[in-house]
Amino acid sequence: MNTTPVWSVDARTGARTAQVTVESTTGGVDDAVRAAHAAHPALADRTRRAAFLRAAADRLEARGDELIATADAETALGTGRLTGELARTSYQLRAFAEVVAEGAFLDVVVDHADPAAAPAPRPDLRRWKVPVGVVAVFAASNFPFAFSVPGGDTASALAAGCAVVVKAHPDHPATSELAATALREGAEAAGLPADVVRLVHGRRAGVDLVQHPLVSAAGFTGSVAGGRALYDLAAARPAPIPFHGELGSLNPVLVTEAAAAARAEEIGAGLAGSFTLGMGQFCTKPGLVLVPAGEAGDRLEKALAAGADAAASGALLDTRMRDGFLAGFAARAALPGVSAPVRAGEDGHAVRPGYVSVPAGLLADDAYRELLDECFGPVTVVVRYADPAEAEAVLARLPGNLTATLHAEPGEPAAAELLARLTPLAGRVLFGGWPTGVAVAPAMQHGGPYPATTSTGTSVGGAAIERWLRPVAYQGVPQELLPAELRDGAAGVPRRVDGVLER
Amino acid sequence: MNTTPVWSVDARTGARTAQVTVESTTGGVDDAVRAAHAAHPALADRTRRAAFLRAAADRLEARGDELIATADAETALGTGRLTGELARTSYQLRAFAEVVAEGAFLDVVVDHADPAAAPAPRPDLRRWKVPVGVVAVFAASNFPFAFSVPGGDTASALAAGCAVVVKAHPDHPATSELAATALREGAEAAGLPADVVRLVHGRRAGVDLVQHPLVSAAGFTGSVAGGRALYDLAAARPAPIPFHGELGSLNPVLVTEAAAAARAEEIGAGLAGSFTLGMGQFCTKPGLVLVPAGEAGDRLEKALAAGADAAASGALLDTRMRDGFLAGFAARAALPGVSAPVRAGEDGHAVRPGYVSVPAGLLADDAYRELLDECFGPVTVVVRYADPAEAEAVLARLPGNLTATLHAEPGEPAAAELLARLTPLAGRVLFGGWPTGVAVAPAMQHGGPYPATTSTGTSVGGAAIERWLRPVAYQGVPQELLPAELRDGAAGVPRRVDGVLER
Repeated sequence: MNTTPVWSVDARTGARTAQVTVESTTGGVDDAVRAAHAAHPALADRTRRAAFLRAAADRLEARGDELIATADAETALGTGRLTGELARTSYQLRAFAEVVAEGAFLDVVVDHADPAAAPAPRPDLRRWKVPVGVVAVFAASNFPFAFSVPGGDTASALAAGCAVVVKAHPDHPATSELAATALREGAEAAGLPADVVRLVHGRRAGVDLVQHPLVSAAGFTGSVAGGRALYDLAAARPAPIPFHGELGSLNPVLVTEAAAAARAEEIGAGLAGSFTLGMGQFCTKPGLVLVPAGEAGDRLEKALAAGADAAASGALLDTRMRDGFLAGFAARAALPGVSAPVRAGEDGHAVRPGYVSVPAGLLADDAYRELLDECFGPVTVVVRYADPAEAEAVLARLPGNLTATLHAEPGEPAAAELLARLTPLAGRVLFGGWPTGVAVAPAMQHGGPYPATTSTGTSVGGAAIERWLRPVAYQGVPQELLPAELRDGAAGVPRRVDGVLER
Repeated sequence: MNTTPVWSVDARTGARTAQVTVESTTGGVDDAVRAAHAAHPALADRTRRAAFLRAAADRLEARGDELIATADAETALGTGRLTGELARTSYQLRAFAEVVAEGAFLDVVVDHADPAAAPAPRPDLRRWKVPVGVVAVFAASNFPFAFSVPGGDTASALAAGCAVVVKAHPDHPATSELAATALREGAEAAGLPADVVRLVHGRRAGVDLVQHPLVSAAGFTGSVAGGRALYDLAAARPAPIPFHGELGSLNPVLVTEAAAAARAEEIGAGLAGSFTLGMGQFCTKPGLVLVPAGEAGDRLEKALAAGADAAASGALLDTRMRDGFLAGFAARAALPGVSAPVRAGEDGHAVRPGYVSVPAGLLADDAYRELLDECFGPVTVVVRYADPAEAEAVLARLPGNLTATLHAEPGEPAAAELLARLTPLAGRVLFGGWPTGVAVAPAMQHGGPYPATTSTGTSVGGAAIERWLRPVAYQGVPQELLPAELRDGAAGVPRRVDGVLER
């Protein structure tokens, strides 16, 4: 029996405030997965599932004050930000209720039997998608609501009809318990067993979870090291399972000479705002910015420095991240030829933002590899390029990203080519603006080439549901034995019938 | 430099007939991948891509006589079967041309900017899918056309806009070379570089291919052992890639008491035809059949035995498979309590089909585990169950499958429950009929839980294209810089605009 305590820690001081629970044992994880597996068939009814998602949103809002206060103590993200994040989380649950009700995600395809079909007679075939089974969700540190217990992975998996076992993030165990309670209350309000959502705690529990034979898929938001370790376990199982992990991203930004010339101050100030937002703890933080050498770029850096200098100090999510951020900044700033126009540092338990600047040519050297790794926290790396070839050489060395951003002027001849150049690097490509801020919208893609994501899925937007489904075709099954959505004349879900798309 | 010869072997005698080429070296694989990568952008034009797929089908047909004669010598599958397979393969290429022209696979979603959106103002976002890059295709032994060089993996990857490097199957290298030539001629006829399709040979080449940094995804059809080894390599890469492998499947069939009582002779004869079709070398061969104990089941077995006894001898695809089949049959038949009413065996270089029969209760013992593993070739395992609980106990021990088949009587009360029971076991669930024969149709699902497939994809039907795409969202990009399909008012592809599905 594991009696390792799970503590709630005040992020602003690093002090333990209360014991929330104990870490889950292997037996406890097994109980949780079996309970979720037993509850899972109850989610088959789409009407009830949609009602559950709406009720869960209602329950989160009903417990909003307590959730926000608890999360603020555990994460130091501030009540303003957390109020917005909770609203986004409730919105997301309700948006998935709409997705469930519409039914397009079922991908219904009906082909009637055709004895005259070429190249061979064709049987009656009807395909749709079914839930994969129990989904393991690994919660993130930096979004205690939107990417944690009640977040996008949970919402999309429940929407797909999968029961969920969440592994709480140790940065906010009390918040996690409260959120799980709200979700379970929502299930019961919709007439579903509460065990469609279960919660486990502790690092060992995460390993047990991803290896459990009754877990059919996993979602993860976190670090490259942690995510890759779990991905490897998922792939090494006797029966491997899909592991949809969001691990890390530099989110490169390319500023053209023309854009710097026209908007140096605006871009510099915008960058300062974006890389310090939420104390740089967004997965979409712009972590590497290609800025032209020369006068326009200098003006941009000046505005950036002013913005970074003026940015507030703040606590990071936990002490480990704080120490990692300070060490990461120091290591980058100490590289020969790298300057630190605004130096990050300690401010009591809090930290001050900073940035470094480096000539692009140096990055050809593997000794500078670290500058191409994400550093969590309020730091960005400005890379000054002398000509487009230097910028291209840096782009060619980048790993995959969630986002890539182009700052160019309207009508600039190279813009189309540069956008095409950035597309292979990321899942979301921005023209202007900043990548922080991820809209919950049908067209959102939050996921990109490895290590941004370990799959081609998205963890935000309606398409996130696709990760938890698998297709099944029924052949020659009599009408009365088919699921209602697959029967002849079934109304209410978009379908493709004998090759033709129908509403 | 590798000078290991690659031989064409006469499947009917096991004798080498000609040296086709030499095995590809690591440098040769690198050349092939780099050439394909360089050619890949030329596939971006959808009109040209569709023309290419049609031209490839034309070229395969133009070379049909030579392809069929070569494949018949290398596989012993017979010119009748191979003529049909080539027609299916050409049809498949043309069907993917239609998929490309229609454009639904692009999954276009447009969300216009909405400053008043809840819970936060929304930027302009437009999402579609782009090709993942170069795809490695591992050809199968048992379908020298339809699941090999010009087969479904290649056709769907090219349709997605990916260049392809195929690793030829050693059972039919001469056929592979001819088919690759036809595809490359098709590319040139459509004004594309021939290198959108490249071919490599040899086991080492397969390993090099799946590990090559410029390969972005892989498709595989073959054995559990070979597929799992390549899957593990794909997952262990510094940047893992999707590996869509079809590995192995028992394709269970459940015959209810009522169905056996009503149609014992029809079912027994149908089963004999299905498990011996193509000398049992289909991935959808029914390999385990649950038959009720008692008189009706005895009649079914009698009809099965008569059919199996009357089935023709034939050569298997290669000597290794022949030896594996004979050893596999002998090992199964030698288990205590297992009978072999029709005994498989040698007939010169050819083999005779056979089947074994076993009481269901024995399968609870791990000593009988082998009966739940696929045995390639013309053998099936009849499992006699005394009651539904015994049948359920066997189903509970089964791994994942491509198909699962229910033989029940119309109106039988348990039919709905049994169909629901079979659904978690497979990607295609049949009511009556036999799983051999995989229609190329939009509603087809050819893929199922592991080890049937290593992903949730399908390798047959229009949805096979989805495996080679990844979503990209454009944010705030001016109209003139967007791909045509994403612009306001773009016609011609199905889209979702501001939440509403449009034709």
